Amino acid sequence: MQEKMKAIVKVKAEEGGTEVQEVPVPKPKPNEALIKMEAVSICGTDVHIYEWDDWASKRIKVPLIYGHEFSGVIEELGADVIGFEKGDRVSGECHVHDNMCFQCRTGNAHICENMKIFGVDMTGIFAEYSALPAANLLKSGDMPAKFVTIQDPLGNAVHTAFATDVPGRNIAVLGLGPIGLMSVAVCKAVGARKVFGIGRKNRYRIDLGKECGADFALSSLTDDVEKIVADNTEGRGVDVVLEMTGNPHAVNQGLDLLRPGGTLALLGVFSGPWTTDLNEKVIFKYTTIKGINGRLMFDTWYRMRGLMESGNLNLDPIVTHELKFNQFEEGMAAMRSGNSGKVVLYMDWFKP
Amino acid sequence: MQEKMKAIVKVKAEEGGTEVQEVPVPKPKPNEALIKMEAVSICGTDVHIYEWDDWASKRIKVPLIYGHEFSGVIEELGADVIGFEKGDRVSGECHVHDNMCFQCRTGNAHICENMKIFGVDMTGIFAEYSALPAANLLKSGDMPAKFVTIQDPLGNAVHTAFATDVPGRNIAVLGLGPIGLMSVAVCKAVGARKVFGIGRKNRYRIDLGKECGADFALSSLTDDVEKIVADNTEGRGVDVVLEMTGNPHAVNQGLDLLRPGGTLALLGVFSGPWTTDLNEKVIFKYTTIKGINGRLMFDTWYRMRGLMESGNLNLDPIVTHELKFNQFEEGMAAMRSGNSGKVVLYMDWFKP
Amino acid sequence: MQEKMKAIVKVKAEEGGTEVQEVPVPKPKPNEALIKMEAVSICGTDVHIYEWDDWASKRIKVPLIYGHEFSGVIEELGADVIGFEKGDRVSGECHVHDNMCFQCRTGNAHICENMKIFGVDMTGIFAEYSALPAANLLKSGDMPAKFVTIQDPLGNAVHTAFATDVPGRNIAVLGLGPIGLMSVAVCKAVGARKVFGIGRKNRYRIDLGKECGADFALSSLTDDVEKIVADNTEGRGVDVVLEMTGNPHAVNQGLDLLRPGGTLALLGVFSGPWTTDLNEKVIFKYTTIKGINGRLMFDTWYRMRGLMESGNLNLDPIVTHELKFNQFEEGMAAMRSGNSGKVVLYMDWFKP
Amino acid sequence: MQEKMKAIVKVKAEEGGTEVQEVPVPKPKPNEALIKMEAVSICGTDVHIYEWDDWASKRIKVPLIYGHEFSGVIEELGADVIGFEKGDRVSGECHVHDNMCFQCRTGNAHICENMKIFGVDMTGIFAEYSALPAANLLKSGDMPAKFVTIQDPLGNAVHTAFATDVPGRNIAVLGLGPIGLMSVAVCKAVGARKVFGIGRKNRYRIDLGKECGADFALSSLTDDVEKIVADNTEGRGVDVVLEMTGNPHAVNQGLDLLRPGGTLALLGVFSGPWTTDLNEKVIFKYTTIKGINGRLMFDTWYRMRGLMESGNLNLDPIVTHELKFNQFEEGMAAMRSGNSGKVVLYMDWFKP
Repeated sequence: MQEKMKAIVKVKAEEGGTEVQEVPVPKPKPNEALIKMEAVSICGTDVHIYEWDDWASKRIKVPLIYGHEFSGVIEELGADVIGFEKGDRVSGECHVHDNMCFQCRTGNAHICENMKIFGVDMTGIFAEYSALPAANLLKSGDMPAKFVTIQDPLGNAVHTAFATDVPGRNIAVLGLGPIGLMSVAVCKAVGARKVFGIGRKNRYRIDLGKECGADFALSSLTDDVEKIVADNTEGRGVDVVLEMTGNPHAVNQGLDLLRPGGTLALLGVFSGPWTTDLNEKVIFKYTTIKGINGRLMFDTWYRMRGLMESGNLNLDPIVTHELKFNQFEEGMAAMRSGNSGKVVLYMDWFKP
Repeated sequence: MQEKMKAIVKVKAEEGGTEVQEVPVPKPKPNEALIKMEAVSICGTDVHIYEWDDWASKRIKVPLIYGHEFSGVIEELGADVIGFEKGDRVSGECHVHDNMCFQCRTGNAHICENMKIFGVDMTGIFAEYSALPAANLLKSGDMPAKFVTIQDPLGNAVHTAFATDVPGRNIAVLGLGPIGLMSVAVCKAVGARKVFGIGRKNRYRIDLGKECGADFALSSLTDDVEKIVADNTEGRGVDVVLEMTGNPHAVNQGLDLLRPGGTLALLGVFSGPWTTDLNEKVIFKYTTIKGINGRLMFDTWYRMRGLMESGNLNLDPIVTHELKFNQFEEGMAAMRSGNSGKVVLYMDWFKP
Repeated sequence: MQEKMKAIVKVKAEEGGTEVQEVPVPKPKPNEALIKMEAVSICGTDVHIYEWDDWASKRIKVPLIYGHEFSGVIEELGADVIGFEKGDRVSGECHVHDNMCFQCRTGNAHICENMKIFGVDMTGIFAEYSALPAANLLKSGDMPAKFVTIQDPLGNAVHTAFATDVPGRNIAVLGLGPIGLMSVAVCKAVGARKVFGIGRKNRYRIDLGKECGADFALSSLTDDVEKIVADNTEGRGVDVVLEMTGNPHAVNQGLDLLRPGGTLALLGVFSGPWTTDLNEKVIFKYTTIKGINGRLMFDTWYRMRGLMESGNLNLDPIVTHELKFNQFEEGMAAMRSGNSGKVVLYMDWFKP
Repeated sequence: MQEKMKAIVKVKAEEGGTEVQEVPVPKPKPNEALIKMEAVSICGTDVHIYEWDDWASKRIKVPLIYGHEFSGVIEELGADVIGFEKGDRVSGECHVHDNMCFQCRTGNAHICENMKIFGVDMTGIFAEYSALPAANLLKSGDMPAKFVTIQDPLGNAVHTAFATDVPGRNIAVLGLGPIGLMSVAVCKAVGARKVFGIGRKNRYRIDLGKECGADFALSSLTDDVEKIVADNTEGRGVDVVLEMTGNPHAVNQGLDLLRPGGTLALLGVFSGPWTTDLNEKVIFKYTTIKGINGRLMFDTWYRMRGLMESGNLNLDPIVTHELKFNQFEEGMAAMRSGNSGKVVLYMDWFKP
């Protein structure tokens, strides 16, 4: 096997500061598998690291190989690995968990007390090969690589939607970035009655919302969202709100759109504090609010794959850019422009 | 308003023994609404009454107007009725409940301690008009009458499926009578991964199972069901079994098809005792078994309507016969032949 | 039967403004029962009405008979009432619901779209007799009248605690007013591991918290609550917070005391807006927040009675004042002083 | 450290056939901890092995060190172990799981697809020292050793009870062997309204049921159980049945005692088939049946410990025999006599 490989590395603590470098191919530890990558995809987290914003400059140590979303094939197995074989196509969970803490031991490994994340706290997977703990891998059968690699953010959408009760219900999805778009598709796939996909200014993404199956793809700036929701829910409001914006105003609007006894699930990350009227919006309304992050390990993954194989889930509109691995800068530019869904980078050897 | 109306009446305590008669139009009590029927549909219960089997001869008192599945329009409101207006299109729940017993007061009105059923314990609705308690009615918007009227059995399917966890899961539906077919359609509508619809001899209904969306429409007599299920579920078996046959052997087969930790929901009514190995099929497998009947009043109804309006639910193949009200005998013959899904009878005045 | 009776009436739209008056004994409507009262108890709502605060002056129309907490005996039944007999001892739910709206029909009658409340929106029950809808009544067997009458607020505590998962868990109860004290007792009755009852300045009530079974009865002003909680929960924080203060600071403190993956249930009513950091306190912590009000009708009532009869629930310290009906002003003064739990007023005829 | 230790070994494939032998002290592997035992306890499984019944003769390979219930102190840690320190008091789960299969990855490690059990499929822990996977251990704080060691069966009782909904409910516990007795205590600890503990002939254990808190400790042979249950549940029957007998007749009796809409949880292991009327006992009654085994890893353990520390759980009557390690034969005789609850064997060095 080759000894060197290409990897996309954040080399400098500044905006941009990224190079494709030759680095050694890693050796898998006893509990790891070496994966030959087919495709990777760019997450908003990668954009933060690229832009070197406040969060990134505090959390990230350069040099760092980017990335945590991937599709690959197992090339070599560490001595202690069970459950996988050479040649298995896999994707995986980016949350490295200790399996021993209270959270891991009670079904919440995604909030492990000693969590580390690929491409953030440790070497990422934007490389020709990666050595990853087998405990983080899942088989992906023969699904297209562009969908295999986006299971990490799709899993966020599935986790958020499945934390509520969607089939037969009216749903508002606040925010039409990639995970908002996925949430729209997931809700329609499981038989939501009406899905209201609500963006702001980005017409490109509002249009994608429609393509993903939203019954109403709206702009909170130019559409009378409250009226449209009321008119289409017998005046009651939606049963469920999935919040993907991280905008405090949106949360309050979401609570206003919600019927009494409904559920608001929060996945978006906020840049500032949230102020609300708990009486009117939560207590008298008998509202449930759920903070969500990550994916249930691995209930979300199994059900996500089931949904992907059901034939109901329309992900086609969401992967808007399919590029080569060395077109990372082009992909990053698409992500930063806002005129994109998911951006996938294929390895040279791989024919999608 | 007219004083007399046509009704389909079981007049004699014997097989057949049914006539279309002129009877008085009922007057609604203060808590009732008078409904002008658009369409009614024939249930298996009506077949039992027609055939005057053991059950019917013990439970039914002739003369009795048949029927409990309907679509109609409110013509007149009793003095105490709230929540409805003249002209509302409605269907309704056939379970008349007392609203005061422990079951009604804790969310289980469908097993009310003082339950009565239209067309079984009291006058049915196969008539031009019916006076029904407003507490049993639900608005049906502008859905086609042939789907409005079949909500009672569709609600059985929804109740059974929603008592388990279907989205993203592998499901076996045992039995492909009308409610089995509906269950197939419901499971696909909410994003089941693979649905195995399993009939026996009736090829007509196995074919309907395929049309309703079953990924595999199988005969337990001629197909190697266990192998096909294993091959398509990574050898694990299905996550959920929905039992609609009432055949004791089918239940044991269903438990064998089920993966450990799965759920079996029982809706079919049995003609004899069931014998099983609790250790192997239930306890060591960590199986959950749920007995189901009726519909949650009215959570099932609201979610069913949501599902019907989602665009995901394919009911078209299930209504196989659309006849006129006075073609009851023809409809009953179709039901008895087995070569039918649901049989709908339209009133003369109604244009579907 | 007598034609006149004593009732406690808010007669003037001002602080105080309350008289014991002679008024006609009501006649029950067909769906009502006439109840001869044994005992009534004073709620915080009654204090608001007495003090004629902002809320009261907007919502209440004088003259109004106060009250909604009671224990009584059925004296006469309306013609349509089923499920009760003359002589039944009863208490009841103060939420008059329409039984026909979406909320009533899906298990949430306590947030009925057309809710009215005794003693607030309609005549209350601080009177020798009351005519109440049978749909609001529940039998109370032979439990002591002082406990029968406090089931309305006890039901708030049970509803809040049972909306979370208490047995074997560590619980913080924020606020040690009557419902906070009841919550402490309820949590201990169902096997909470450690209950941290947290008040502020009122030492009388902190001491009551200890008597009700709190493992730690603390003052948020003088005790190092975070340290005490950490030291007694392996450093993780509590699994559940029950918020009964209506103080925005307390909610944030509660979220800090909560372990990741925990649940905060909100019953207290707030006098101002709440500002929080959703990222740290809700999203990254995977927190669930539930707004609670009323009682599940009637699941909460049945389980509450079960708990009262279990022998585990120590309510003795909570009823601190047992007075005669005409000592209303004295009872109200005790309520307003803060040096009280629940205040019960017995009818003259009744021997507790 | 010493190199040899005492262990209780099944040496011959026949009834009895047990010796206390000197064997080498094990060396912990990298993922294991070496535990110095304080106390062990005898399980019904150990009795089967001792008696060399059908099950044992098929499953067990001699020689085998017995046992899986223990309390001990960590003496040495393997190189890869995290989360524990030398000197930690621990007990542990006897189910060795692979952490990689579908079941382990979705919260059901107790039905791992590659399960092995200490003292059955691999070396047990009736020895002065044991080397066990850290993944199986849990800290036990300062609870008495006799209660630490019985957490395996107590966890069965907690798992079974918590799979239903006990607080405020009426419960029947069928069977008053050690786990039945524990179930009685658990149900009372979490605020069951009435607990009906139902044995057969063994008066010693029926009396223990009463000591454990059963409101009614009954014999199904000599008491009119149906009448007593009806008289104390307003004629409705119990909300929950916990089946611990493994007797097919008991299951049917349990279903008759159960109210419509109730739950039956099955933990007992059956010696023959079960025949029932699914219509009357399950489907029309809207019954849920849950097969249970093992303990949730490790949700059950954390909540069990919480319950043990709540002060509500009365385990005192259940440990009826406290012996020395070398009194194994005496302990086994007590177990086989039926006149025992749990039998605990203390190590020589340990002062309870």
